[in-house]
Amino acid sequence: MNINGDATVLKLYHNDMSVCAQKVRLTLAEKGLEWESRYVWLEKGEQLSEAFTRLNPKQVVPVLVHDGRVVTESTVICEYLDEVFEAPPLMPADPYWRARKRLWTKRLDEAVHLPHTPALCFAIAFRHLLLPRLDTPEKREAHYARLGNPVMREMQRQTLEQGLEAPAFRAAVRYFDDLLADMDAQLGETAWLAGDVFSLADIGYAPYIHRLFDLRLAPMFEQRPRVKAWYERLCARPSWQPAMSGWQDPAWVEMMQAAGREAWPAVERAWRAAG
Amino acid sequence: MNINGDATVLKLYHNDMSVCAQKVRLTLAEKGLEWESRYVWLEKGEQLSEAFTRLNPKQVVPVLVHDGRVVTESTVICEYLDEVFEAPPLMPADPYWRARKRLWTKRLDEAVHLPHTPALCFAIAFRHLLLPRLDTPEKREAHYARLGNPVMREMQRQTLEQGLEAPAFRAAVRYFDDLLADMDAQLGETAWLAGDVFSLADIGYAPYIHRLFDLRLAPMFEQRPRVKAWYERLCARPSWQPAMSGWQDPAWVEMMQAAGREAWPAVERAWRAAG
Repeated sequence: MNINGDATVLKLYHNDMSVCAQKVRLTLAEKGLEWESRYVWLEKGEQLSEAFTRLNPKQVVPVLVHDGRVVTESTVICEYLDEVFEAPPLMPADPYWRARKRLWTKRLDEAVHLPHTPALCFAIAFRHLLLPRLDTPEKREAHYARLGNPVMREMQRQTLEQGLEAPAFRAAVRYFDDLLADMDAQLGETAWLAGDVFSLADIGYAPYIHRLFDLRLAPMFEQRPRVKAWYERLCARPSWQPAMSGWQDPAWVEMMQAAGREAWPAVERAWRAAG
Repeated sequence: MNINGDATVLKLYHNDMSVCAQKVRLTLAEKGLEWESRYVWLEKGEQLSEAFTRLNPKQVVPVLVHDGRVVTESTVICEYLDEVFEAPPLMPADPYWRARKRLWTKRLDEAVHLPHTPALCFAIAFRHLLLPRLDTPEKREAHYARLGNPVMREMQRQTLEQGLEAPAFRAAVRYFDDLLADMDAQLGETAWLAGDVFSLADIGYAPYIHRLFDLRLAPMFEQRPRVKAWYERLCARPSWQPAMSGWQDPAWVEMMQAAGREAWPAVERAWRAAG
């Protein structure tokens, strides 16, 4: 209940396959919270509308509106939800492990999320969707010029023009190989990423590792037995269906998996060269 | 006291003029904590030593060692110190304003710190220190190749080769102009950046705004009366001397200010064009 005696209202502006939206839905499900869905059709450009831009000038999902207060950025939203709704806690109790959680999610925000995850997605799958309509150098230049973020612009330029030969793609494969090794090492010391309790660190990484699975890159983490077991434990939690699999778009997953299967021989060569 | 009954020992590996080290020293001073200084001579490359790399594989200061536990990344260190040593609190009490603090420091870590602050420093000042010894294209290429971070590499390439004409420099001037406008707007609504209480958001931004002052870019924020008043309130706090001015290297400050004075006419043109 809020101070007016009304039931607390949580509205989430989100999208089915956005990794950042998946993260927030996992947090809501782990907390057992009721929420209202405000679905944003990214394919139709609804995130660019005037109304949505007022909510989030960055024009990205997710956005949480809690009793009229707007919170943006998935990592910040998840910590906000954990502080407002205390049970079950999703942050470690020990300040040292809280710091370790924040180092994991900082790495997620500053490197895993951009440029490395989209570099995999664009080089393997999205370029095949975009190139048919960006079929001249002029159309592609106009597309790059519309991208506000210079890191995103350079990553898309490389992966659309060069596909699996793009240095940004090869860097992403190397980066994920190192990341999976670091996760595996941590999971050799503690049950979860930020110590022996399940936390927002695990929730943060879950959608990104699931994206590897959707892109048929599972061999990259299946050779890391502790990461594989960690991922399977996540998929078995009661939060997985309402947050992840319940929102899967089967056509989109099939497109990603088909592109991933076709790319795998070339991806595997890049991966073996990185290792 | 720790569990062994010894006094708590805080060791900070830091450097006089590093903005991230300044942030942590401000937090230690605001908390009234005693700490042992482990000075790292960046000019001599001490951060690249084997011993320091074991402490922080990223090879950057600051690093906090608290009773033998290592914490890296200044934003994470500051929140850690606030959670371990509770008084005076440096995080807002309201979860909404805690989220707002985290949005401010996320922006700091993901854009202000890199690429925009070093783009100003390199284009205005550091290039004049580096170019005399990087006096052939081959030496410069070797220097760029040694930089592990691709964003840092591109920023240095542009600012060393093109100085105040570099697109990265012009983007930084535009970015800071927008940032100062956003800070000014926030300070029109609340006394401090994350609400009406002084917090780690203010501590985070203090060294970066002070860097504008050192580069003689103060006109950029002096036209924002609330940012100017906020900066003056920070300089008047008892924490400023032990954390900031007490560690100033006068020769370094004189070099920055001299370069800033010389660059100002060109900087002002870029700034007016941005506004």
